[in-house]
This record gives sequence, C-alpha cells and structure tokens, in this order.
Amino acid sequence: MTIHFDDVNEGDELPELSKGPITETQLVRYSGASGDFNPIHTVPRVAQSVGLDGIIAHGMLTMAFAGQLLTDWAGDGSVRRIKVRFSGMTSPGETVICRGKVSQKSVEDGKHIVSGRLTVKGAEDGSLKLKGDFSVMVPKR
Amino acid sequence: MTIHFDDVNEGDELPELSKGPITETQLVRYSGASGDFNPIHTVPRVAQSVGLDGIIAHGMLTMAFAGQLLTDWAGDGSVRRIKVRFSGMTSPGETVICRGKVSQKSVEDGKHIVSGRLTVKGAEDGSLKLKGDFSVMVPKR
Repeated sequence: MTIHFDDVNEGDELPELSKGPITETQLVRYSGASGDFNPIHTVPRVAQSVGLDGIIAHGMLTMAFAGQLLTDWAGDGSVRRIKVRFSGMTSPGETVICRGKVSQKSVEDGKHIVSGRLTVKGAEDGSLKLKGDFSVMVPKR
Repeated sequence: MTIHFDDVNEGDELPELSKGPITETQLVRYSGASGDFNPIHTVPRVAQSVGLDGIIAHGMLTMAFAGQLLTDWAGDGSVRRIKVRFSGMTSPGETVICRGKVSQKSVEDGKHIVSGRLTVKGAEDGSLKLKGDFSVMVPKR
C-alpha cells in the first residue's frame, strides 16, 4: 500500500501502530543490532545501581517504532525527516502506541511533502515516551 | 609466534589462558554475535524462573575460549578438531583458566599433527567447566 499526495489532508491521523509488550530479549537483540551496549538496557544489576527500577529500552528503539509508524503508512513514500524529543522511559513489559497526525501539505522544488506530528505513549498509562515531527515525500497520482 | 612440529613434545603443556571476569554485557554481545538469544544467558528473571541462581554463560563461549587457547599457541598452525564435553556452568563474575597438554605427535598423509587434551576450569574454585581433546596441524621446520 502507498499513499498519494492528493488523498492526504491536513488533520488526517495515521493508522496507529502498537508495539509490544517489549521484552528483555528484544533489548538484548537491539543492543547487538545498534552497537549500543550500555548495560542500563540489559543488566538489571547495573540499572538498579544507577537508581533505575530496572532495565529500560533504548530511546533509539522507541524512535525506531515511530519510524515504522511512518514507513507503514507512507509505503512508497520516503521519510525525509524525523525529529523527536524523548520524554519518558520505557520498561520491558510495556506496550507503546505510536500515533501521527498530518499538519501540513506543501510542494517544495517540485516535491510533494507531507509534514506532521507524532507521539509514542505507553498503552496502559498513556505516559508520553517521545514526541516529535516528521516530513515524508509522497508520490502524486 | 608459531610452533613447529620438531619443537613439540608429548607431555608439553600449552601456555595457560585466563579469560575473565566474564561480564553480563559480554553475554549480551555473544548473544548477538552467535545468534543464540536463549534468555537464560541474559535475563536474570528468566534464568531464575528455570531454577538457576542467575544468568549463565553460553557453553559455546566457554568452548571458544578453549579455541583461543589453541590458536594463541598454534600460531600459523591450524586447528583441525576440538571436541568437548560440558561439565559445569559459568556465571558472570567468574574467571576461567584454559589449559592444554600434548598427548601425541603423528604424521598422517604427510601432515604433521599434534593432539592433546584440554580443560577449562573456574579460576577461583577449580570447578571443571569443560574438558575435551584437540588436534592441530603444525608446520615442520
């Protein structure tokens, strides 16, 4: 599936993406995939020693979920920018919900651009994990 | 450095190799490197749920240490066989000592072969982690 510039409207909401529950092993895998072996993501003993309740997900993994929200939606469109601000920690066992909303359509140098805002929140408590904005280049029919 | 067939004698001991202390993060790295994501190696909660005191090292990592014992010693020689039997678990925090001893020299199809036995034991309590045997093809001067 792909979206077309003509079919997108300001105010449109992207199809929600639910990711989770996040598992400890997923963080082990992401450590290897990303090369970020900071033990606060995998070693409870170390996480607790720095004052956390336990291990926490890599922020970049949470951002990658937001990226998947966009690529699932944009299909053949290409993500040009994702900019996020991290707001809260995510722990194994949590499920997060990624949401996005179109705020602007524009044509720049002949390219058809859709921009908007996105959030990732905890599914259970609604706590904000990150928010940010994006722009995606999409085809015109 | 490399060894030569002529210089090796039955009964020779290989230079000991000490590896450790093994860390939790090393097991996270080895999970990614090996593709073995069994959580008993990385997730204390899961390890405890199956009756272990905590996470344990991958047996193949311990065997890899034995492999390093051989390659450090053999230099330009090539390891033809390592066969091990696992005897005990290794936990993060432990250091292990790898040892080997030459038991036989032989010439097979014009190849110069050195065979022997090896062990990996806990540095602190001497507990056996694995034992096995090896053969290495080495150059003749």
